Amino acid sequence: MHLPRPSGLVTLLTDFGHRDPYVGLVRGMVLRAFGKAQVVDLCHEVPAQAVPVGAWFLRSAIERFPAGTVHLAVVDPGVGTARRIVAACAHECYWVAPDNGLLGDVLSAADGDAEVRVVDLEQQALRPESATFHGRDLFAPIAGRLAGGRYGFRALGPRCDDWERGTSVIDQGAVVVHVDAFGNLVTAVPAAGSDWTEVRVGERRAPRVRTYGEARQGSLVSLANSFGLIEIAIVGGDAAQNTGLGVGAAVTIVQDDDHG
Amino acid sequence: MHLPRPSGLVTLLTDFGHRDPYVGLVRGMVLRAFGKAQVVDLCHEVPAQAVPVGAWFLRSAIERFPAGTVHLAVVDPGVGTARRIVAACAHECYWVAPDNGLLGDVLSAADGDAEVRVVDLEQQALRPESATFHGRDLFAPIAGRLAGGRYGFRALGPRCDDWERGTSVIDQGAVVVHVDAFGNLVTAVPAAGSDWTEVRVGERRAPRVRTYGEARQGSLVSLANSFGLIEIAIVGGDAAQNTGLGVGAAVTIVQDDDHG
Amino acid sequence: MHLPRPSGLVTLLTDFGHRDPYVGLVRGMVLRAFGKAQVVDLCHEVPAQAVPVGAWFLRSAIERFPAGTVHLAVVDPGVGTARRIVAACAHECYWVAPDNGLLGDVLSAADGDAEVRVVDLEQQALRPESATFHGRDLFAPIAGRLAGGRYGFRALGPRCDDWERGTSVIDQGAVVVHVDAFGNLVTAVPAAGSDWTEVRVGERRAPRVRTYGEARQGSLVSLANSFGLIEIAIVGGDAAQNTGLGVGAAVTIVQDDDHG
Repeated sequence: MHLPRPSGLVTLLTDFGHRDPYVGLVRGMVLRAFGKAQVVDLCHEVPAQAVPVGAWFLRSAIERFPAGTVHLAVVDPGVGTARRIVAACAHECYWVAPDNGLLGDVLSAADGDAEVRVVDLEQQALRPESATFHGRDLFAPIAGRLAGGRYGFRALGPRCDDWERGTSVIDQGAVVVHVDAFGNLVTAVPAAGSDWTEVRVGERRAPRVRTYGEARQGSLVSLANSFGLIEIAIVGGDAAQNTGLGVGAAVTIVQDDDHG
Repeated sequence: MHLPRPSGLVTLLTDFGHRDPYVGLVRGMVLRAFGKAQVVDLCHEVPAQAVPVGAWFLRSAIERFPAGTVHLAVVDPGVGTARRIVAACAHECYWVAPDNGLLGDVLSAADGDAEVRVVDLEQQALRPESATFHGRDLFAPIAGRLAGGRYGFRALGPRCDDWERGTSVIDQGAVVVHVDAFGNLVTAVPAAGSDWTEVRVGERRAPRVRTYGEARQGSLVSLANSFGLIEIAIVGGDAAQNTGLGVGAAVTIVQDDDHG
Repeated sequence: MHLPRPSGLVTLLTDFGHRDPYVGLVRGMVLRAFGKAQVVDLCHEVPAQAVPVGAWFLRSAIERFPAGTVHLAVVDPGVGTARRIVAACAHECYWVAPDNGLLGDVLSAADGDAEVRVVDLEQQALRPESATFHGRDLFAPIAGRLAGGRYGFRALGPRCDDWERGTSVIDQGAVVVHVDAFGNLVTAVPAAGSDWTEVRVGERRAPRVRTYGEARQGSLVSLANSFGLIEIAIVGGDAAQNTGLGVGAAVTIVQDDDHG
């Protein structure tokens, strides 16, 4: 397959949060490997160890960054164990992650138009300083080298077809899979192709609208969100707080003909 | 008016928070529009939909960034509705925002030395992919193009004089308008020109000091903060927690002659 | 001593948090001083005014960034008072901070191989606009100038040997000194050279493992973390929440021969 020229951009997605210098040290080690890298944060508040949420957040980056961007993702409960590190070329970008399903959504969206490699740490002369922070010790240097063109993608290691698929957040159907910073309740139901007219949230109805500003302040609505999923929101308010619902809550998507 | 040459810098101010990839995707789309952009965060924790707070935070950026910086601000309760997108040149920088008052404080500080344009989306061949995330779909490309000099400011669209003024946080007087990360209580009273000697907070007195370290640990003080506003603080502590006060609380500014 | 050539990178460590535009304005003022600076966040959630924690976080950056990086650290309870501003060259990088102990850990790790200067504000023609935000008014311009090579390190001011050593988090022994974003309990006990077999946390035992994934989900373990300190963790969980312990809690490090 065609390999895009690295753009020098490296994005970071982790579950490290912001309390500690962890993300900062990853940035530093990317820059030590490639001093001209542009390090850009995608998100650092993936819930701790929540690989499927990380996989889904990562998917949102497809076609939103320049070709040749290196997307580094570290949600890594198996850090320091024998789990492998994989790198992929797909969607005109590079993706580096532990082989634990974190690339599952990105690669399944590529529909076969992807190449995956297992990083050969010995050949890359990479030995971790710690058993608990491979983001700093291994992932950052790999991403930096890739971004800088110092090592080509194919030199990272052998081709691999048995990478971990993981489980997808999107397979879960009519449940809340994420509460965003606005308190919007994001379901796993794709909006495209659905003819829904409202969502039932317990006793309450959330009629379908096109965007928040189409209903009056304080009303419960459902809409196609920017991930392409059905979402429940309160106009000008916080739906999670207002309904008491959170991740895992079941809702009912009402289709047009359900009314008949 | 004189148009500064774009510096390549794009700052971001939003109410998106840090839990989601939203800000990351805006960064990506700026970089897709202009790969050499430097994207710098101003603040992403404007309270949800709080346009006046966003306007006031944005104002703090005046003369704090290089000339030619593009400041992108997205606090946008009307996303997906007919509200317009505006771009302004003022204070030797560019400012892009929804036309909902978010540029009010920046433009009123310019005292007429500003030029405002309505972005003509059709002419710019910009069509949003979603009805709910124009930060990603419209604002980011506009800011990126402007920063890259791909489109000149005046090519963005027609001149506009009826942009939304909004309401200013600063008009509210002796009330707390913001609690900062240290728990300091920021009032809307400009410090310059005021001869205050203390602030009364319920039964308690907060004598005026020049800076925190001038009073002993744990004492309640008032001072001119870095926004140029009167602020109430606890030395080495958290005034919001200690006093139980928050946004909206009224305080009394005691002038010298009030004592007489 | 040898002075590395500035790399153009400026890192930021503060206790400013993310709620306010404070960090954004520091970024802007660095860029006003040197438009080609790369500003990179190390951490902004040092607990408010906690100089020893800041000093320890800063130490974690040693040898994690390119040579010639300028590390700017602002945890500054004495802002606006007579406390001095210092700059150091150590570990092939530059470090700028208030003279309050914030550079203590970095400089003690340099073992004498460091040069410290007091910044001469008058000679640098720097006068703060505010008494409460020297991060914006003084520190940012100093870091930017240093990063841009506009002023050499030695031109910043006279040599200084009486810089404030401060107190080190690491001197505290078997107590929890930090709870990270995962809820891991970090102690002040260096792992290197310790033969510990388990840590006692109240009634509970946390046996020593090499990494999280070596014990089963939900078990309490102790391990050498990426700072080189002994840490208590719950595999796949939050040890702070689970044990109810926080900063200051005492634990018992059990050495091999303690069992005998």
